[in-house]
Amino acid sequence: MNETLQTIFQRRSVRAYSDRPVQDTDVELIVRAGRYAPSGMNTQGWHFTVLRNQDKLKSLGERVAGVGQTFFYNAPVLILVSYRIGNRFAEDDCACAMMNMMLAATSLGLGSVWCNRINGNSQFDTSLQDYGVPAGYQVHGCLALGYASSPLPADRENKSDTVTYL
Amino acid sequence: MNETLQTIFQRRSVRAYSDRPVQDTDVELIVRAGRYAPSGMNTQGWHFTVLRNQDKLKSLGERVAGVGQTFFYNAPVLILVSYRIGNRFAEDDCACAMMNMMLAATSLGLGSVWCNRINGNSQFDTSLQDYGVPAGYQVHGCLALGYASSPLPADRENKSDTVTYL
Repeated sequence: MNETLQTIFQRRSVRAYSDRPVQDTDVELIVRAGRYAPSGMNTQGWHFTVLRNQDKLKSLGERVAGVGQTFFYNAPVLILVSYRIGNRFAEDDCACAMMNMMLAATSLGLGSVWCNRINGNSQFDTSLQDYGVPAGYQVHGCLALGYASSPLPADRENKSDTVTYL
Repeated sequence: MNETLQTIFQRRSVRAYSDRPVQDTDVELIVRAGRYAPSGMNTQGWHFTVLRNQDKLKSLGERVAGVGQTFFYNAPVLILVSYRIGNRFAEDDCACAMMNMMLAATSLGLGSVWCNRINGNSQFDTSLQDYGVPAGYQVHGCLALGYASSPLPADRENKSDTVTYL
């Protein structure tokens, strides 16, 4: 089985991170992977905000989840994927970019998880300019990123009866 | 650069297919890749319908795009990804599954493209039981799949100014 398929089958959502720092070059490759996702009519109407400033991260976590709380599992890096409001393809485009980034992270030995506390769930997703999200953009997905603090499950249970061949 | 990243950067949308048949084992791996996408709360509320029956393909193409027409570029395989209506995570889940399948296809030397003529764009997306979509499910994405009839572009232009580091 080729490495890409292995990566796809080995990816797991990671919800506990170690303190090991993430290399700039890896972050850049992961963001580049997101930007290589397909987009409807090739609009590429997305924006990637890479949050690594620890004060900003703490502040955003508390703003979304409450004082002393966080929604991104204390990961050392958070990538916010937002889209220009009004782009009708954008939600799928952003989801594809998120998937590419998750696989790129896995291929580099990093863990990640799509965090669901901003996109569509709060009053914050269009007012995060203090955190690097451009005005006029709505956050669709947040990717927590870092090294997993413990080994990942070797396999996962997939539901049966989800495929029809015709 | 590892193979997964190479696959991500080499993937292109393919809109012209050769007659070369797609192996069953490759289709099965590609669908399996879709099923290994993450899903909100791990609901896996999706269904994959693999359409290879040429009469069904022709009929579906004409039903969506008109007599003598098709919306899937005459690809030899079409995979319909649908979700149980009412699942609030489902659109992102299906988009992630689509992305996994596109990358799996690329890694196996196959081409693919997300076709946008059913999901949300027509009256058909919840009434395709004759084409293997379960009742109560809504089609979200259609993946045309096959061998490209000509070489793909070596690179693609990505928009600049789509990343902020903080």
